[in-house]
Amino acid sequence: MVSNYPPNILLANCASRKVLDLIADKWVALVIRALSLGTMRHGELIRTIEGISEKMLSQTLRRLERDGLVARKVYPVIPPKVEYSLTELGWSLNEAVNTLSKWAEGHIAEVEEARQRYEQQ
Amino acid sequence: MVSNYPPNILLANCASRKVLDLIADKWVALVIRALSLGTMRHGELIRTIEGISEKMLSQTLRRLERDGLVARKVYPVIPPKVEYSLTELGWSLNEAVNTLSKWAEGHIAEVEEARQRYEQQ
Repeated sequence: MVSNYPPNILLANCASRKVLDLIADKWVALVIRALSLGTMRHGELIRTIEGISEKMLSQTLRRLERDGLVARKVYPVIPPKVEYSLTELGWSLNEAVNTLSKWAEGHIAEVEEARQRYEQQ
Repeated sequence: MVSNYPPNILLANCASRKVLDLIADKWVALVIRALSLGTMRHGELIRTIEGISEKMLSQTLRRLERDGLVARKVYPVIPPKVEYSLTELGWSLNEAVNTLSKWAEGHIAEVEEARQRYEQQ
């Protein structure tokens, strides 16, 4: 990746754009929000994030683990017990993602009104 | 859409989830960031947001206009002049999106280091 100083997501080759590609994602936002409630196993995440598929959850967790946002802890028991939690980096993203989630939760009515006006045009 | 009180994006049918679907998107983040620099025409947006295609820009602008985040102003001249700007609602989203963009710009090195560690495992 190309390093731009200062970083600028408007530039296609800036490394920050690649990071934005990964984090500006609904499922990333939802997994991070869920893990901000506490350490969870795969099954708990599935139940907490309504509507996420097994496959999407696995893919999202793998990406988040690779990018250092989520830690995966495997306990040497039979059957294996695997727990996911936010890393320090993940917690810092949580704040940014929360701003977005709270915006979504706080502006439903205005977006719906705008859509109705648009449809009526 | 179902209204939940309080809204909770972890619930599949909560209206806030539908709003998150729309705003947790790389191109939405980039168009909003670009328009926070000022009112722009289509061609200016294309030049400002490196790597966006004509089609993706048109789709994103249409969605943002429908959801009340972007205002489209048509001047009755020949050839028609069309300008895009953030609405009040769009400016409020800009703050949330900026937090995410700034996170991306500020944590490039940590994400890249995590990836290198992951690849080496």
